[in-house]
Amino acid sequence: MRTTIYMGMSLDGFVARLDDTLDFLGGPPDSTAAEGSFESEVGASFAAFMATVDVLVMGRRTFEVVVPFPEWPYGKTPVVVLSRTLTAVPDGVPPTVRITSGEPAEVLRALEADGAQHVYVDGARTARDFLAAGLITDLVVTHVPVLIGTGITPWGPLPHDVRLKLVSTARFAGNAAQSHWSVVRGAPPR
Amino acid sequence: MRTTIYMGMSLDGFVARLDDTLDFLGGPPDSTAAEGSFESEVGASFAAFMATVDVLVMGRRTFEVVVPFPEWPYGKTPVVVLSRTLTAVPDGVPPTVRITSGEPAEVLRALEADGAQHVYVDGARTARDFLAAGLITDLVVTHVPVLIGTGITPWGPLPHDVRLKLVSTARFAGNAAQSHWSVVRGAPPR
Repeated sequence: MRTTIYMGMSLDGFVARLDDTLDFLGGPPDSTAAEGSFESEVGASFAAFMATVDVLVMGRRTFEVVVPFPEWPYGKTPVVVLSRTLTAVPDGVPPTVRITSGEPAEVLRALEADGAQHVYVDGARTARDFLAAGLITDLVVTHVPVLIGTGITPWGPLPHDVRLKLVSTARFAGNAAQSHWSVVRGAPPR
Repeated sequence: MRTTIYMGMSLDGFVARLDDTLDFLGGPPDSTAAEGSFESEVGASFAAFMATVDVLVMGRRTFEVVVPFPEWPYGKTPVVVLSRTLTAVPDGVPPTVRITSGEPAEVLRALEADGAQHVYVDGARTARDFLAAGLITDLVVTHVPVLIGTGITPWGPLPHDVRLKLVSTARFAGNAAQSHWSVVRGAPPR
């Protein structure tokens, strides 16, 4: 089973400002944006990625950022929200969403047993926890053209180096750099 | 005058480990490495960059990391080391190196007055100070295939967003992603 972190971030590694706003990312994917624009190219890339995803696992904080979006960004893809505090899905959220208080490895085992082949892991804290636990197979990072200095980042202390291999690179509308990395399994911790 | 930050870093933004070691970067540029190897491609890119550089400005900490390298990596390019504590250049360091206790803006003004057209700004802390002071025109970032979790980073708090434009991207030996960004002048702080 593949488990992918797919994140847009400032060149200095922030996926949101400290107040959870995302303005610097260029806004959520927009299927109505002009062809060739940054938004449409990011949107097309995200749509192509989502078409390969069976289940999305996200943290509670990211979920609460996404809920007020004008359009639910994940279509019919099942979404599992990790939370020890939420007990019910808020009004207006699609029935594809469920909440679990399970541990990361346990949640992934259950999804794999249910036949999931590709899990999209979203949210900075969740991404970091899954990376530290050795549960991620792929990272797709889109660096947008700004340094914001402070914010929320998926990067943080790890029990050991995570060795990667560069799978591919892409540019969006000439002004964002995407790189897809796979985690090298069995690399010796240093 | 162009002022460029040119840095190799882990995907999570670290240019050195907390103990100043650089092992995860694949070692310093190596002109004897096999053609097509990571070291030779990084070395060729660095050599091409250095050929455009008139003067290098670096922090004291980076200077002290570089001094013990088996080969001085900057050829005949003049190097200005920013330090308020160093007073003399250590033995064995080329005569191209001088030390100054000047402020960043003042040092750059003096270099420009001397005819410098391209200054390479090196060192994590120095890069951050120059970015925060609005003194950088270009960033060339080479992400190497590893997450190290903790370390020394050029990224840090800024007085306002630094808007960028993606100039170009490149890959090295298929396993590192380089991106060249120019700073957008006069972009409104948000």
